[in-house]
Amino acid sequence: MSQQFPSHNVYFDSAGKDVWSIINESAAAAAAKNPSREIINLGQGFFSYSPPKFAIQAAKDSLDIASNNQYAHTKGKPSLLNALAKTYSKHYNREIKTDEILVTTGANEALLTILTGFLQKGDEVIVFEPFFDQYISNIEIPGGKVVYVPLHLPAEISQRNVKGEEWTIDYDELEAAITDKTKFIILNTPHNPVGKVFTKEELTKIGNLAVKHNILIISDEVYENLYYTPEFTRIATLSPEIGRNTLTIGSGGKSFAATGWRIGWIIGHPDLLKYASLAHTRICFSTPAPLQEATAISLNEALTNNYFEKTRQEYIKKYEIFVKIWEELGLPYTIAEGAYYLLVDFSKVKIPEDYEYPEEFNTRAKDFKLAYWLINEIGVVAIPPTEFYIKEHEKVAENLLRFAICKDDHVLEKAVERLKLLKNYI
Amino acid sequence: MSQQFPSHNVYFDSAGKDVWSIINESAAAAAAKNPSREIINLGQGFFSYSPPKFAIQAAKDSLDIASNNQYAHTKGKPSLLNALAKTYSKHYNREIKTDEILVTTGANEALLTILTGFLQKGDEVIVFEPFFDQYISNIEIPGGKVVYVPLHLPAEISQRNVKGEEWTIDYDELEAAITDKTKFIILNTPHNPVGKVFTKEELTKIGNLAVKHNILIISDEVYENLYYTPEFTRIATLSPEIGRNTLTIGSGGKSFAATGWRIGWIIGHPDLLKYASLAHTRICFSTPAPLQEATAISLNEALTNNYFEKTRQEYIKKYEIFVKIWEELGLPYTIAEGAYYLLVDFSKVKIPEDYEYPEEFNTRAKDFKLAYWLINEIGVVAIPPTEFYIKEHEKVAENLLRFAICKDDHVLEKAVERLKLLKNYI
Repeated sequence: MSQQFPSHNVYFDSAGKDVWSIINESAAAAAAKNPSREIINLGQGFFSYSPPKFAIQAAKDSLDIASNNQYAHTKGKPSLLNALAKTYSKHYNREIKTDEILVTTGANEALLTILTGFLQKGDEVIVFEPFFDQYISNIEIPGGKVVYVPLHLPAEISQRNVKGEEWTIDYDELEAAITDKTKFIILNTPHNPVGKVFTKEELTKIGNLAVKHNILIISDEVYENLYYTPEFTRIATLSPEIGRNTLTIGSGGKSFAATGWRIGWIIGHPDLLKYASLAHTRICFSTPAPLQEATAISLNEALTNNYFEKTRQEYIKKYEIFVKIWEELGLPYTIAEGAYYLLVDFSKVKIPEDYEYPEEFNTRAKDFKLAYWLINEIGVVAIPPTEFYIKEHEKVAENLLRFAICKDDHVLEKAVERLKLLKNYI
Repeated sequence: MSQQFPSHNVYFDSAGKDVWSIINESAAAAAAKNPSREIINLGQGFFSYSPPKFAIQAAKDSLDIASNNQYAHTKGKPSLLNALAKTYSKHYNREIKTDEILVTTGANEALLTILTGFLQKGDEVIVFEPFFDQYISNIEIPGGKVVYVPLHLPAEISQRNVKGEEWTIDYDELEAAITDKTKFIILNTPHNPVGKVFTKEELTKIGNLAVKHNILIISDEVYENLYYTPEFTRIATLSPEIGRNTLTIGSGGKSFAATGWRIGWIIGHPDLLKYASLAHTRICFSTPAPLQEATAISLNEALTNNYFEKTRQEYIKKYEIFVKIWEELGLPYTIAEGAYYLLVDFSKVKIPEDYEYPEEFNTRAKDFKLAYWLINEIGVVAIPPTEFYIKEHEKVAENLLRFAICKDDHVLEKAVERLKLLKNYI
């Protein structure tokens, strides 16, 4: 018998299989078992449709220039830095300079570069729960410790539709979580999976607390162009002191329906970006050049062609299509103020008690079983949100499922038809 | 006065400015100072020309398919995994299955994912010196310790042209560097910056040592398609035992003149790839999808259109153009057996002793000053190879400069003309 391999990093033992792999593999297995029935995927937040024509054309054109196919500067292509400076100068209502911007290989790498640039073993990072799952590894891989602060969900979530503002922060609880080791608070607005857009008042309280304790804020605003409230507040703009301590993350993929392009960015003080940049150079070295160029051109076009406003209107319509079924079924949901998810409460849905699940589902909360059952019996994919909670707290979310509506209208309409089958289980 | 920012990761203090930034900024400054003179950049290893037409067309076509613009599977797009399986089955003379392949966001991230997946604090990694600079941060960021083993350069390097085989490993020295904490040996063949292609005998000795001590081998073979020796030996193919312990890194950017596409891959045992894959999911999540598709199509085309063989012939010609000037000047070089660099010995070049350098050059070895002088006085950019040595050993390389010849022939011809000016300094 051959020797054992040398030992691996034990961190990845605890990691287990990520929710994306579990759900995608379940969907693939269900499709294989019943090839005549289409599986409608409202699970992962990728778009079922193409980026806008102007973005695709920009990508094609950029490929025709030799230098666009070679290493971009590690800080980002000048064209993209300039387009971002113009875009954010408008958002921030002040001149944003290119040295306040760092281009990264997707928003995920943006977060990892910041945390790698700053964290030392034992430093603490405050994360609101529910959290996007990648935050945790992004903190732990560079040696940080996650401190969880709940975004309290409304008690009536199983009884009636609730609003984003009913998911609340207890500011005493937040301040109590701060220690002399706290280096960052990570925010996400518009919020995945809740759909909450944090209000100016909420953000001011968080921002002032961060300034008071000299903590840095990472504001994950990848859904910044998808809000359905009258306004979207950016924490970096609330005061010079808050702005100085804030690193804001944006995403070309989310902005232009191109999650596969892997273009992200960070906006922040040059003295902070410096360390993210040093880490980025060593992690990804540089970011895909033709797709940076395409994103630059697309941002410039979006400044004049009203693309983001049109997209918001399209998404309001998508929600109209998709919430109908839940109204009809009487299953309550969290009204989305932003992003492209809908959290639905499945408390009233009765799954046969003897239903059989693959072994990896047995150790997971009820929502994983719900998701598996929904894929196999109804043919619709959703994400179990307890993945966005730690084990000890997952009970609060075990009746919820997250649906992604970043899909063609006809896909949503097919999903609605299919979900009518749930009537038999209520 | 405003508060100080929270402290950063002190690792990045020691890092200093990377050679690419130093040299690129010097080149930009020299261009600004003398706009009428073109600076000829043979520094960084990016191509001055476009990827082949079939690759560009493949990229454009891939953008027309909606799903090619969305998240690819974290392990890689099936089309690219299949194309790589076909390509490496030919190279390895056995069937390579897709579960022996992981797609990464460039070769740099390939190395980082392997090391992040395996290293625990204090684990040791053996690196031959000179090394590609990114290896060091890729080892140290996940907490590993670098152990340097010299690739001994020939004593006559300042007297006559030398061959790759004259840069040698002392196998007793290599074995003495192995401890019970050694987890990896990193190899690079064809070698950057030396241009050495390791022979079957050399690789067999290294491989057998690794197997004897149950150490994993990472073979960085990003220049695998650019060798000018009769054959290119892949260490993974030398015996089943060596193959089992080897993770081989390849690069779409180096293969198709598209360093800005950021497509890399790892070939290895599924039980090893598993941990690289877990790390990759958390570092980059997934790799740019349209450029994966384009690389897949390009690899399939290269299997039938003889592209790599034609490219090798073109590079042999590029070397012919570029070595003439060194023959004429009487400056010896290391004859390149692979990759696209030429290491030239500048011992005979006399730089005025009172020449002035920017402050950041004062702490660096003589080759940095040589490079700065060459940029400013001759208008040609080269890379100082002491960046690829640790401080204590840099003396051996202080008279060398690395020129990248992955440029259009007319650029090389212009460089040759310009370099004739060196006659005044010999």
